[in-house]
Amino acid sequence: MQDAAVADYTNAALDTRLACRREDITGHTAGLAPGYLQGNLCIVDKEFATDFAAFCQRNPKPCPLIGMSAVGDTNLPDLGDIDIRTDIPRYRVFENGVCVDEPTDIRDRWTDSMVAFVLGCSFSFEAPLLDAGIPMHHIESDTTVPMYRTNIDCVPAGRFSGKMVTSMRMMTPADAIRSIQITSRFPNVHGAPIHFGMPEKIGVADIMKPDYGDPPSIVRDDLVPVFWACGVTPQSVVLNAKLPLCITHMPGSMLVTDKANTDLAVM
Amino acid sequence: MQDAAVADYTNAALDTRLACRREDITGHTAGLAPGYLQGNLCIVDKEFATDFAAFCQRNPKPCPLIGMSAVGDTNLPDLGDIDIRTDIPRYRVFENGVCVDEPTDIRDRWTDSMVAFVLGCSFSFEAPLLDAGIPMHHIESDTTVPMYRTNIDCVPAGRFSGKMVTSMRMMTPADAIRSIQITSRFPNVHGAPIHFGMPEKIGVADIMKPDYGDPPSIVRDDLVPVFWACGVTPQSVVLNAKLPLCITHMPGSMLVTDKANTDLAVM
Repeated sequence: MQDAAVADYTNAALDTRLACRREDITGHTAGLAPGYLQGNLCIVDKEFATDFAAFCQRNPKPCPLIGMSAVGDTNLPDLGDIDIRTDIPRYRVFENGVCVDEPTDIRDRWTDSMVAFVLGCSFSFEAPLLDAGIPMHHIESDTTVPMYRTNIDCVPAGRFSGKMVTSMRMMTPADAIRSIQITSRFPNVHGAPIHFGMPEKIGVADIMKPDYGDPPSIVRDDLVPVFWACGVTPQSVVLNAKLPLCITHMPGSMLVTDKANTDLAVM
Repeated sequence: MQDAAVADYTNAALDTRLACRREDITGHTAGLAPGYLQGNLCIVDKEFATDFAAFCQRNPKPCPLIGMSAVGDTNLPDLGDIDIRTDIPRYRVFENGVCVDEPTDIRDRWTDSMVAFVLGCSFSFEAPLLDAGIPMHHIESDTTVPMYRTNIDCVPAGRFSGKMVTSMRMMTPADAIRSIQITSRFPNVHGAPIHFGMPEKIGVADIMKPDYGDPPSIVRDDLVPVFWACGVTPQSVVLNAKLPLCITHMPGSMLVTDKANTDLAVM
């Protein structure tokens, strides 16, 4: 797949989705179709979709909405030739907040009253940070970025409410300043950090004990923790809402879109 | 003067300079002609001017050049109707690195071989920070911003070399992030900070003992020190070079130009 992507870069995103559709890809999408925007998935019934849309609109840093289907429509034409029921490597199906299945397609579960939401993810801003020579320690150590529940309340909407989840990257102050400049250009993929240093001020008691992902691989006294709003927030909020049915992507197994990450730069 | 400036805002900068020329204003320019760009002055002989221009070019964060006269020319037409010999409230004259006079005009000292450099100053970015609701504690306490010599070497040029001087403002992390975004728009008035937190990493041993200005008026455990490259750097470097003659403005008594601070925003 990756060789093919290199050979015909313009079709790398579609090729990846087709391989997912064929179930040739059922795992992580990290590193696939480099340069293309990848997104988080959240599918809810139309009964809850308007409130969830409002929740995203009110909390753009953790929940940057980059795509939304019409009711019952499995296509997302603005993001590419997509069948949302098959084009993600692996899904998670939640009933009343409990995961009941992790299928590779959801054609048998899709109904005409479902609405798919695609949310930006930090994969998109890590590429320009790496391009700027800023180390991403979790990538170097092949671990998942550490993520923490904070004490920061999201703005609620209907039954959706909860605390913001953040991802954290350790950096020198100089790299943190440059990262703030770079990620400010990408408000649709979480944008600038929401905090740095002093983890206790946002309710993070122990930086070595993330709530999701792996502990930081490098902690040094010349590095500060820099916290970005994280796409795990909407998943956490949706699960807390204990909807009768909700379908998400498997963490790390994202929707690969035809949009370039650079398309999202606001300047 | 300030009433007149309010009454006819379009001439506030020129009115201020004319009052300096008449010696009606001989002190600080803080708060005069609000919105207009103020600059630091450094006058050297043409023998040293090219190297000083190169020093500024190589060190744009501490030495952002916003104006430069032709050799022997007392006018800076791109910055307004300016006579650089009279239009600053008070000057300092240095011979071999030693201050020998603090006159209110320098007509008797100006020669045909002199070159005037005008450098951006942090007054310009403090206005948009205040507009963003970010407290400037030194302004609230009516003190001078604390400034520190760092262990960061400027890039040398000819006989000009030395350590970078920084100004420091205490902020919450959230305000620091917003400040980085805002000041990044103003690369010609020092731009983004060069460091935050961990003062010892840039050679600042005791934050309560600045090398210039007043100690910080507020230090709390929810605030971090944020350091910007400072316009005192070129003065320090020029004095270290022990030129036979060098003329600067009196700290705080700046050149008020016809340019708006907002003209300097790069986006």
